[in-house]
Amino acid sequence: MEKVLRFKKEDLFNYAVLYMEKLGIPQKDAEIVADVLIAADLRGVDSHGLIRIYSYYGSRLEKKYMNPLTPFKIISETDTTVLYDGGNGLGQVISCLAMKKCIEKAKKSNVAIATVKNSNHYGIAGYYAMMALEHGMIGISLTNSQPLVAPTYGRTAVLGTNPISFAAPSYNEYPFVLDMATSVVPIGRIKVYEEKNEKIPIGWGIDDDGNVTEDPKKVQSGGPGALMPLGGIDIMRGYKGYGLALMVEILCAALSGAAHLTDVGFPHEPKVSDVSHFFMTVNIEAFRPLIDFKKQIDDMIKILKNSPKAAGHARIYIAGEKEFEIVKFNETHGVPIIAPVIEELKANGKRLGVDFELKPL
Amino acid sequence: MEKVLRFKKEDLFNYAVLYMEKLGIPQKDAEIVADVLIAADLRGVDSHGLIRIYSYYGSRLEKKYMNPLTPFKIISETDTTVLYDGGNGLGQVISCLAMKKCIEKAKKSNVAIATVKNSNHYGIAGYYAMMALEHGMIGISLTNSQPLVAPTYGRTAVLGTNPISFAAPSYNEYPFVLDMATSVVPIGRIKVYEEKNEKIPIGWGIDDDGNVTEDPKKVQSGGPGALMPLGGIDIMRGYKGYGLALMVEILCAALSGAAHLTDVGFPHEPKVSDVSHFFMTVNIEAFRPLIDFKKQIDDMIKILKNSPKAAGHARIYIAGEKEFEIVKFNETHGVPIIAPVIEELKANGKRLGVDFELKPL
Repeated sequence: MEKVLRFKKEDLFNYAVLYMEKLGIPQKDAEIVADVLIAADLRGVDSHGLIRIYSYYGSRLEKKYMNPLTPFKIISETDTTVLYDGGNGLGQVISCLAMKKCIEKAKKSNVAIATVKNSNHYGIAGYYAMMALEHGMIGISLTNSQPLVAPTYGRTAVLGTNPISFAAPSYNEYPFVLDMATSVVPIGRIKVYEEKNEKIPIGWGIDDDGNVTEDPKKVQSGGPGALMPLGGIDIMRGYKGYGLALMVEILCAALSGAAHLTDVGFPHEPKVSDVSHFFMTVNIEAFRPLIDFKKQIDDMIKILKNSPKAAGHARIYIAGEKEFEIVKFNETHGVPIIAPVIEELKANGKRLGVDFELKPL
Repeated sequence: MEKVLRFKKEDLFNYAVLYMEKLGIPQKDAEIVADVLIAADLRGVDSHGLIRIYSYYGSRLEKKYMNPLTPFKIISETDTTVLYDGGNGLGQVISCLAMKKCIEKAKKSNVAIATVKNSNHYGIAGYYAMMALEHGMIGISLTNSQPLVAPTYGRTAVLGTNPISFAAPSYNEYPFVLDMATSVVPIGRIKVYEEKNEKIPIGWGIDDDGNVTEDPKKVQSGGPGALMPLGGIDIMRGYKGYGLALMVEILCAALSGAAHLTDVGFPHEPKVSDVSHFFMTVNIEAFRPLIDFKKQIDDMIKILKNSPKAAGHARIYIAGEKEFEIVKFNETHGVPIIAPVIEELKANGKRLGVDFELKPL
């Protein structure tokens, strides 16, 4: 068990803002990036939180691989659509802006889509989908990413883990928030098994010959091997996960005219990543009274949760429910950060003159 | 191997129209239903073709469970949205109409959504998504269905097989056409194993206790047991398939105010099914020149198809590709119908006075 320290959310936020400002990011933008990163740790999605502040953002900014000013521009726009060039800046900054624009447009036009090209990693997909909830809208957020997933019958990584996030508002229950990679697992999950010297389940990854493997060392970012799409092996319909990943790639890269598939850069590569995103909002009131929709979502959740449980299980979950409960716990008890991440925050902060000196709770 | 006879597409179409007209469906509507049904057989999706003309449509029409006149009405409408009441009529008729309306709206407003409540089974989801292609649009088609799939940690069927279809136009390659149930397999696939007296793979279905089972007899429509969502067992992330199924349920049932989950009727039940659908169109030109998008889709397809193959595999497929090739073959050699379906067509046709006397090729 790794050592975990817990910190006040506000302390982590303030530190992340300072760190980002040192790298040349304007304060308001730094606050957005910090909020998205810490939202991940807060929700228990620690793979997308402060653990990545250096490898995905800090290192690229130090080396000038990305632009701290996020000098975005609008390439095309209509009442229901907008295409941004993200200026090779912070994915979080342009994504928040794009989702806000979608919400604004859907208030008038009821449905809106924003796509973003020339961007970078944007953190958790769910952050942006959830922005729609308080406006009585359904929110959708998709992104492509560096190639990590093999197509069915392939043996090299061609597709990103291309997540799908979908959020719908509820009445008394937690909102429905789906936020899932279209691969079976993310690459970080393989790493966990490798570090524990354990076999990975059959169907998570393939080796360099394209055979399923239980050896995590044979499934690495950038090769050898690759992750498998949701479904896994053929008989379990892995081609459906592959199809979903390609659908996300089309909506992000082809609709915006960004880099696609193997042309999307890895965070460590000394080049423009050209990651692309897709956002969408649907104003529920355009179809029927929002209150009726919300109450129906509650009813659906109750039917699912009250349905008979499988042997050995006491509870059926709804997408997003676990994360909302973790947020509640972490807001009371502090946001957990594992020791190696704290060491990394200290080392990288020191170099920039922003010492990480937060007191754990 | 079951005996298969091949027929001219036009002959099957004309017969299906006659049969539907005998059941009180107006000619133009009958032609739509026939076209959707035979498109399934033509594409090799024989589970959704003429095999269902009696069980899903004919029997319900004979017993007056559904309305042959499809007396739809518009409940709400804006420049980008429309909600239909399908009048408990033919799912294919209202769905074609709804998708046409989406295309028309997207020509002006660039993005459009149509939802339909109080409908019935609409055939293959892909039929409607593909209607967008010739208009330079992305098409999306979703539907819920009678409960056949258990939520993760559940042991009874609560969700439909809720398919997702997504179509995007290409330049020289086949268009990208994803058309997938959000369960691992449809219930018909389990039936095939049962009839062959073979075990089903672990992860396709659960028994009445919620345990995975290899016995197809324990995974039946209406119980006992249930299908598993895409991903299958927990370690393979079946909760993602469950999340996708619920996303489809929300977009179909909650956005339209239709029956949901266990309230959706089975085709054999003597009641209104209240199946619901969701359709969407995206006008690509609103974002960037259509020709550039189409050429990028071709590039993506080439990268995927030219990527290294797994041991034992010579070819990587794109969603929809196999079906387009099957269509080509069947248009030349005839549409295959298995002997038991022909017997059923003969028996049910005779009763209505429309004898099935087609000559196989």
